[in-house]
Amino acid sequence: MDLKVYLQEKRLLVEQTLQEIMLKPEGLLADHIKAMSYSLFAGGKRVRPILCMAAAESLGPPPAGLLPVAASLEFIHTYSLIHDDLPAMDNDDLRRGKPTSHIVHGEAQAILAGDGLLTMAFEILSSPELGSAIGAEKQLRLIHILAGSAGPRGMVGGQAIDIAAEGKELDFATLRALHSCKTGALITAAVQMGAVLGKASPSQFQAFTDYGRQVGLAFQIVDDLLNVEGTTEQLGKKAGSDAELEKATYPAFFGLEETRQKAQAAIAAAITALDSLDQKADPLREIANYIYYRKR
Amino acid sequence: MDLKVYLQEKRLLVEQTLQEIMLKPEGLLADHIKAMSYSLFAGGKRVRPILCMAAAESLGPPPAGLLPVAASLEFIHTYSLIHDDLPAMDNDDLRRGKPTSHIVHGEAQAILAGDGLLTMAFEILSSPELGSAIGAEKQLRLIHILAGSAGPRGMVGGQAIDIAAEGKELDFATLRALHSCKTGALITAAVQMGAVLGKASPSQFQAFTDYGRQVGLAFQIVDDLLNVEGTTEQLGKKAGSDAELEKATYPAFFGLEETRQKAQAAIAAAITALDSLDQKADPLREIANYIYYRKR
Repeated sequence: MDLKVYLQEKRLLVEQTLQEIMLKPEGLLADHIKAMSYSLFAGGKRVRPILCMAAAESLGPPPAGLLPVAASLEFIHTYSLIHDDLPAMDNDDLRRGKPTSHIVHGEAQAILAGDGLLTMAFEILSSPELGSAIGAEKQLRLIHILAGSAGPRGMVGGQAIDIAAEGKELDFATLRALHSCKTGALITAAVQMGAVLGKASPSQFQAFTDYGRQVGLAFQIVDDLLNVEGTTEQLGKKAGSDAELEKATYPAFFGLEETRQKAQAAIAAAITALDSLDQKADPLREIANYIYYRKR
Repeated sequence: MDLKVYLQEKRLLVEQTLQEIMLKPEGLLADHIKAMSYSLFAGGKRVRPILCMAAAESLGPPPAGLLPVAASLEFIHTYSLIHDDLPAMDNDDLRRGKPTSHIVHGEAQAILAGDGLLTMAFEILSSPELGSAIGAEKQLRLIHILAGSAGPRGMVGGQAIDIAAEGKELDFATLRALHSCKTGALITAAVQMGAVLGKASPSQFQAFTDYGRQVGLAFQIVDDLLNVEGTTEQLGKKAGSDAELEKATYPAFFGLEETRQKAQAAIAAAITALDSLDQKADPLREIANYIYYRKR
């Protein structure tokens, strides 16, 4: 398979779905909707929706409701980027090569854009239209997976640990827990949600979960690596900002060489987790490899 | 009925439920959970959960799942207060007589506490335990009502309109739309969610919706009045802050006397909406009256 073509095709489907779902900037809500749309359509790679789709399609043809479910993950991811970039948090002026939300729309509208996107994810997943397509039981399972992965025991908790840890020395267990919450939880949820839609058996669901955890770990390690190795131009955000903020990262802990090995080991473990699946899972395998080589 | 006793009893049930649901401040998440708990247990009157319970119980005995469903509304309400108080928003240092979240926990943890509470509301409503109690169909209806009322076409959209409107001259239609989104939507949702749990017929559901809209309107008008009439001590937050920020409010638009009349008219309309319900709806009628007389 040609991964580049695959990612391009899936990305296009995600873009179309996000365009269909997103409100039009009209009337009194125009500013709010523009602020949400600005970040939602700022050129994201759509990794989480694509993982969701690849997981579902590794079990059979695309199931009903796949696109809006995949899109809901991007609403959550985008909200988290807006809030992470705020002056009180990471204070980033650039994201994907563009000024961040609070730079363009002001801090108040940026906070509210994040809140709006987060809430919309649950509007999408609880919609009666999706219910007609997939049934209430499945819908609820998806909502519970997404809310759990985004909530205090997941992404937002990870960000809170990260903020609390700035300038402090962390042991490896803490760093690992931080990564697992902050990045791993939503990536794992993406794969799990695809698995639910694809009617995974319990053992298959566990395989997808293992894959998601390892890919999430690799993703965060590679993010840390890129922050050290990349230039501001390549990254689309300020390079070296982690070191400047004295953030807990893998390279700060293990050095570059051992960090690269750990990323590769996580990717190998992700691929091993899929051993019981046939070649329909090849996109998931290729994506795991791609995570290491992106932007290199 | 003795409304004071009624409110006190219900409030106690809500407090107990919130305590049961809220995570314990342990381990790496301790700071995050402390920040969420600080605002969740800062002495709120629990108006929205109580409205939800009163609506459900005006149709019969307390239905299964009522308490966690009612509690989910307070998670959303508390998140909105934390974010509204932020320096970039209303920049309030005091709320209910206590320092606001960002004063105590810092701005970053305050933003994340809001995000965490918002997300937890959907964790609560999508939990398998609640599903066993009330069934998936009802659960989804509740989630869709809550997400819609909290999202861009509801509360967060109202706050965005409010921020965009600061220092601008607004017409009455805009002011009304702002209030209806910012305060009315969640109060209406509270009553609607109680109605769903109480198995309201479509015409009853409409009556509760009308009641909720009028009570929400009255609530916001009275809030505006109190901001002008009250002292900082009475309010537990800074008095006169709306006028200082040149905020669009009912008193700024109509003067005090006409504003009082409009509040009373909304309360009368709320009570009229319940005409088809028997005396089990008396708490809802009393609460509508109470909204006008609170803190006077």
